[in-house]
Amino acid sequence: MIDQTPAPSADFVFGTQATDALRLAQLRAARAGLAHAQRIDPPDPRPGEPVTVALSIGPRVAADHAACYYTTDGSEPAGARGVATTGTALALTRTAVEWDTLLWGYVETWAATIPPQPAGTLVRYRLEAWLARADASHWASEIAGVIGGEQPAHAEPFDAELFAVPGQPPLWPVRRTGSYAYHVDTEPVPAWLRDAVIYQVFVDRFAPDPGRPFASPAALDGFYGGTLRGLTERLDYIAALGATCLWLSPIFPSPSHHGYDATDYQAVEPRLGSAADLRALLDAAHARGLRVVLDYAANHISSEHPAFRAAQADAESAAARWFTFTRWPAHYLSFFGVAHMPQIDSDSPPARAYMIESACGWLAQGVDGFRLDYANGPSHAFWSQFRAATRAIRPDSITLGEVVETPVLQRTYLGRLDGCLDFVLMQALRQLFVFGSIGPVAFDDFLSRHLAFFAGDFTLPSFLDNHDMNRFLWAAGGDVRRLRLAALCQFTLPHPPIVYYGTEVGLSQARDVRYADGGGHPEESRLPMLWGAAQDQALLAFYRQLIALRRRHSLAWRGERATLLADDASGLYAYRCGAGAGAVIVALNTGEALQRCDLAAHGCALALASGDGVELSADGELLLPALTGAALVVAAS
Amino acid sequence: MIDQTPAPSADFVFGTQATDALRLAQLRAARAGLAHAQRIDPPDPRPGEPVTVALSIGPRVAADHAACYYTTDGSEPAGARGVATTGTALALTRTAVEWDTLLWGYVETWAATIPPQPAGTLVRYRLEAWLARADASHWASEIAGVIGGEQPAHAEPFDAELFAVPGQPPLWPVRRTGSYAYHVDTEPVPAWLRDAVIYQVFVDRFAPDPGRPFASPAALDGFYGGTLRGLTERLDYIAALGATCLWLSPIFPSPSHHGYDATDYQAVEPRLGSAADLRALLDAAHARGLRVVLDYAANHISSEHPAFRAAQADAESAAARWFTFTRWPAHYLSFFGVAHMPQIDSDSPPARAYMIESACGWLAQGVDGFRLDYANGPSHAFWSQFRAATRAIRPDSITLGEVVETPVLQRTYLGRLDGCLDFVLMQALRQLFVFGSIGPVAFDDFLSRHLAFFAGDFTLPSFLDNHDMNRFLWAAGGDVRRLRLAALCQFTLPHPPIVYYGTEVGLSQARDVRYADGGGHPEESRLPMLWGAAQDQALLAFYRQLIALRRRHSLAWRGERATLLADDASGLYAYRCGAGAGAVIVALNTGEALQRCDLAAHGCALALASGDGVELSADGELLLPALTGAALVVAAS
Repeated sequence: MIDQTPAPSADFVFGTQATDALRLAQLRAARAGLAHAQRIDPPDPRPGEPVTVALSIGPRVAADHAACYYTTDGSEPAGARGVATTGTALALTRTAVEWDTLLWGYVETWAATIPPQPAGTLVRYRLEAWLARADASHWASEIAGVIGGEQPAHAEPFDAELFAVPGQPPLWPVRRTGSYAYHVDTEPVPAWLRDAVIYQVFVDRFAPDPGRPFASPAALDGFYGGTLRGLTERLDYIAALGATCLWLSPIFPSPSHHGYDATDYQAVEPRLGSAADLRALLDAAHARGLRVVLDYAANHISSEHPAFRAAQADAESAAARWFTFTRWPAHYLSFFGVAHMPQIDSDSPPARAYMIESACGWLAQGVDGFRLDYANGPSHAFWSQFRAATRAIRPDSITLGEVVETPVLQRTYLGRLDGCLDFVLMQALRQLFVFGSIGPVAFDDFLSRHLAFFAGDFTLPSFLDNHDMNRFLWAAGGDVRRLRLAALCQFTLPHPPIVYYGTEVGLSQARDVRYADGGGHPEESRLPMLWGAAQDQALLAFYRQLIALRRRHSLAWRGERATLLADDASGLYAYRCGAGAGAVIVALNTGEALQRCDLAAHGCALALASGDGVELSADGELLLPALTGAALVVAAS
Repeated sequence: MIDQTPAPSADFVFGTQATDALRLAQLRAARAGLAHAQRIDPPDPRPGEPVTVALSIGPRVAADHAACYYTTDGSEPAGARGVATTGTALALTRTAVEWDTLLWGYVETWAATIPPQPAGTLVRYRLEAWLARADASHWASEIAGVIGGEQPAHAEPFDAELFAVPGQPPLWPVRRTGSYAYHVDTEPVPAWLRDAVIYQVFVDRFAPDPGRPFASPAALDGFYGGTLRGLTERLDYIAALGATCLWLSPIFPSPSHHGYDATDYQAVEPRLGSAADLRALLDAAHARGLRVVLDYAANHISSEHPAFRAAQADAESAAARWFTFTRWPAHYLSFFGVAHMPQIDSDSPPARAYMIESACGWLAQGVDGFRLDYANGPSHAFWSQFRAATRAIRPDSITLGEVVETPVLQRTYLGRLDGCLDFVLMQALRQLFVFGSIGPVAFDDFLSRHLAFFAGDFTLPSFLDNHDMNRFLWAAGGDVRRLRLAALCQFTLPHPPIVYYGTEVGLSQARDVRYADGGGHPEESRLPMLWGAAQDQALLAFYRQLIALRRRHSLAWRGERATLLADDASGLYAYRCGAGAGAVIVALNTGEALQRCDLAAHGCALALASGDGVELSADGELLLPALTGAALVVAAS
């Protein structure tokens, strides 16, 4: 089915992949010309391993030669037609030719192998292809952004056609020669992340200064008055919930309530607090065993940032090289075309240095890592350098990317980031527990394939909702049973769970975020935290139990996962996590009728029920009312 | 770009692949559930080679086990859930999981290896997958046809959604459990085919009985009166042209002028002649060194065929099993939904036996092989058996498939047929020489990838036009220069060329075939042959020279092919075929201006010019007026 309309707003998450037209445009643009697509083998090179780099050459480019130029000393590789001017040149050889029906043409694969390198080496490379009998050369490039209006430089002529969507104004993808890199190391994902329970705080909406109420701005995108001091005061609440890590929305100076358009990456927004307030927060959090992760937008900054002001004032300034002006000064790449969020050229040395040094500065002050906003904006080479630099400051700091794209793209961050927020899983959880558009069989099948696809040292934190989509409870029409059931499933998955502030106490919204109409009201999912009597205490108690279960049985989630039951007719879904004593059996009734099931759970204890009426009989039969679930712990034998 | 409208009628060839909507539907349907897609490795098994069979399991099917049941004695393999009841069961193992953005889900690959078999073995197999904890089983299936109306049996529930095209009535693909097979042998493609020059005759339109004129039917789909005797009388013309092989349009009894709906596969249509007339034609052709290939439609028959009449009269009859009734008697699969062309179930033993035995009968009478109409209709297993049986009768008989589908599908006939008519090349030739939608660079690039993709013992006969599309000369607006230039290119390619009757003497048409409007006038490209003064004698002389060149330098076309020049600005395109003495250099000026080029062709002789004004100077410079080309032969050094 050709689907040119986005999915229902409740499910509208993958904006750039929302329609068949967009998927086709991206699939074609990715393969029409020269594409590297970060295909290196092994995907996370270790010392002493040779690395094969792959290049595909689509039907819009003719070539009979291809070369890889690489350096191992951090310098930018350069060369032409097989002769390196900086670094070493390797000839690629043609390894395959495949037919691509969407492009209605052939796509070749070429490859070369870069020799093994010692630990700590940053291997930088570029990929070129050309026809021996012609002058033109082609370079593997990445789409750095999309812009309307006149054709900009660095656009492949075929891109406009591939990107054309009927009924839409023309768009030009802007390509930049891929400055690729990988870092040779043996860095594992920090062990603490695997066992983390992450609590996501939208700072302006969480807690005002002690003793003060929230403000009442005229509009939802105004300032509600949450502060770092207010958050510090509420740390006992978060610790009592059981979370082990805080993810704070951006705290740097910014004109907006959300902070994703910062004017300074090395200071604290005064509205939110002072450097001392942050210091106090970090100390208080660490004293309670809570790590603190900052939200970091390396892709774009505020148009009021001094660098962008300097760039617009002088096209020849050093700062102008931080950005991609398609026509200086008024036309430049920006975050989804939002003019006040100009996009950083992450391969520009001064911009890259600023972003990496600023991040390192925060780690030196005690911050434990970063949630990386729109991580698919900056280049992969940028992230390889970002992680190497931040790990050098704090070996146990973490990097988690927001990549709202296909799993294929997400997986390319293996070895560059510690993980990606798991948007595809979130979609599947909502399909099963909110919309009923898939049943237990399809969900279980998805999950096993999803986990197999992401095998390797890569973390996929799970979540039910966040600040960019309808809250789960709202999407579920306020049915707390569905939220509890989904949370029970979420907290018994292998990867660390995230709780979006307020989800645990029934915070919802008043209107749909309705992204699908083009406008959207994302602030609907960012209403002020509920405190005191406004909190759903039963739900909160459930979440505390759930987190306690999660933390108590950490080995179970890492252990083997076995599906015991998945039945679309009844809606029952059950699985065992781990083996032997301490293993956990989870049973979920996603249906609207009471169910009984015998999971051969003799000798198990009912550790957690998501609702009333759940019973485990002496002979192991489990009674599950509609939309309830249970966790059973296998006792020592 | 989402393209829901077909390409311009002049280019409308790939009907089932004409729009993005159709391509998407097919790509998705092929991967949504269980798919084998004839993926065996090696693709053409030889004695003593183990064979790995691959199965993909898409997101619409959940499975944790898969099995292959195979036999080597010709019997139909059978089994369930890993236990064979006929033949041997092999467990498949999961080898990969990939993300499919078009399906927005994961696709797994599973594989097993069938042990080596001796020459002459027909290995038949089926592929099953299932969930151990559920009752349902899934079988790798093939889409046997598409039907409107109510949902038929054997339709996967997801197919209707995948096949839905906005604005079109619903269609149901009908699946049939794949009864797969491969034949273990060392059969090469008959050597004579490699050097053949094939002349395609539409019998009713070629030559009436000696001394009689063509009839003047009221409509273009009437009978013009061409006969076998008329053709026999014209064999000297065809032999003088230089062709080495005749492909006759269907000659079996049929109510239609084209004969693709036969009522008897073992007789000659009386309108066209008698069995004796065919005998005389075969003898006369063979005496002139001409092979004779029959057009054979194994996919569908006439609704007036006795078997279909019997099937419609009695649902329990043996004949009813020849067909696929979705609701007996009025609803059944047919060729593109044409009711008077019911589709044969090629895996039905009696239908398969009839089709194969009838073909063998013709070979026994001296026929040299078959052009197989709509060869992608019958199963691959059918063709493996068809070829083994026909080769047993006539080891040098040939099988050429009409597969108007992607090269990916065409290539799956390696080892089952001797080749496929090269529709993708035809499209590229028309893009370069008629429409100018690609230039020499893209054409040359396409060609090298195309030849690499089809590496192996598989023949891709080339053609510029046929009876189902606008004639080349019509598409080219009557510009004979373009036809000559394209023919020069066609005749200097590695694979054997086909000439559609009349192309060599300027036969054109009066109206566009306009398939794109849904109706179409295919008969426009099937007008009566021009004879006598109506023939373009200059064009005919050129074709004779061209064919002579083709036949004289057979080693050149099989030799290495080197591109000397491909320039989109000038339109020049030149290449060398073969090496050393007897190699041929071809230079084509696809542009509208006179060009000079120096191909370092010292010591070459101008063997053929496609038009006036072509000159080769003593110092090797070649002068090419607009839309002319030349062939130069490298002299002995």
